[in-house]
Amino acid sequence: MKTHRKELWFHAKRRRELINITPQVEEALAESGITEGLVLVNAMHITASVFINDDERGLHQDFEAWLEKLAPEKPYSQYRHNNGEDNADAHLKRSIMGREVVVAVTGGRLDFGPWEQIFYGEFDGRRRKRVLVKIIGE
Amino acid sequence: MKTHRKELWFHAKRRRELINITPQVEEALAESGITEGLVLVNAMHITASVFINDDERGLHQDFEAWLEKLAPEKPYSQYRHNNGEDNADAHLKRSIMGREVVVAVTGGRLDFGPWEQIFYGEFDGRRRKRVLVKIIGE
Amino acid sequence: MKTHRKELWFHAKRRRELINITPQVEEALAESGITEGLVLVNAMHITASVFINDDERGLHQDFEAWLEKLAPEKPYSQYRHNNGEDNADAHLKRSIMGREVVVAVTGGRLDFGPWEQIFYGEFDGRRRKRVLVKIIGE
Repeated sequence: MKTHRKELWFHAKRRRELINITPQVEEALAESGITEGLVLVNAMHITASVFINDDERGLHQDFEAWLEKLAPEKPYSQYRHNNGEDNADAHLKRSIMGREVVVAVTGGRLDFGPWEQIFYGEFDGRRRKRVLVKIIGE
Repeated sequence: MKTHRKELWFHAKRRRELINITPQVEEALAESGITEGLVLVNAMHITASVFINDDERGLHQDFEAWLEKLAPEKPYSQYRHNNGEDNADAHLKRSIMGREVVVAVTGGRLDFGPWEQIFYGEFDGRRRKRVLVKIIGE
Repeated sequence: MKTHRKELWFHAKRRRELINITPQVEEALAESGITEGLVLVNAMHITASVFINDDERGLHQDFEAWLEKLAPEKPYSQYRHNNGEDNADAHLKRSIMGREVVVAVTGGRLDFGPWEQIFYGEFDGRRRKRVLVKIIGE
């Protein structure tokens, strides 16, 4: 069994951003030399997500509006966590979108359906944050 | 280490359906000959889910009503993605229910609690779509 | 390849509780002798979650209020599943928070960012329920 580990760093300029990280995950997979197995990709921070969906601008605007409806950023005072913090909503948004994805590796490639793309979902940005890629297989 | 890969195909007759796919995943596991490891089961489409819950008809009606409340299908014009599409709500519903499950394999069986069953959640059906089963172990 | 399996048992005194189970998962990892691989931690019951977030009391109160807003416990009669049951809301809450986490193992440790902690989310407690830890690697 082989394993490979890589950290990806991101610095979103806005509080919330969705960043397509599929190329970076493919690069980590190529570096690993693993052709059959599983890739775990997870946010290392608890106010960010890694998820799989469509790389379509309109949909990303829909995600923004929808997450703001389900877990609004403001007023900050509505959350108990915002006692010296202002990011409680980011913890909730990340809970909906998920911390991690696990992707099959087959024939040295991410084993994806036609539209699957991996995104880093930043919900409390404007600072450097990390994503972990861990690959196991052979 | 051994790996096994299988695609499961579904053609839901309605826009939204919940289909118990546990028997098909068990069959893939039996074919693999793997007795200890992990099974990844994921939707290969971004408007569908794979999740684990109870196979109870009333609960499935509750899921339908609840998902429609949190991410309503109509009016289509409420979503930016619905510019030539009408399935933005399906992308959101799938985000709540999740893309994938990872299940332990122990003694050649899916290592489940008493009521766990695997479902394919279709949110934009009436066409053929796929689920990926990838098993790693020994 | 090595595998290790362990069940963790919990008996929440209240209907809903969030319990930090990171020490128990670390203990299972130490017992396994596995230094590189993946850990799967999943609820074995369909009215409970395993998720990763912050161990902060205010945030946990926010989760409670937020989940009650998105999937209220009462009135019980609003759910079809509550026909002899009263826990439909627990199935929905668990769907938002997730069934499982997969965590990388690197150098014999849970490969975590600075604030990541693993929680058992009980949404229908007051009885004994289980979490499964399955570790694969070498």
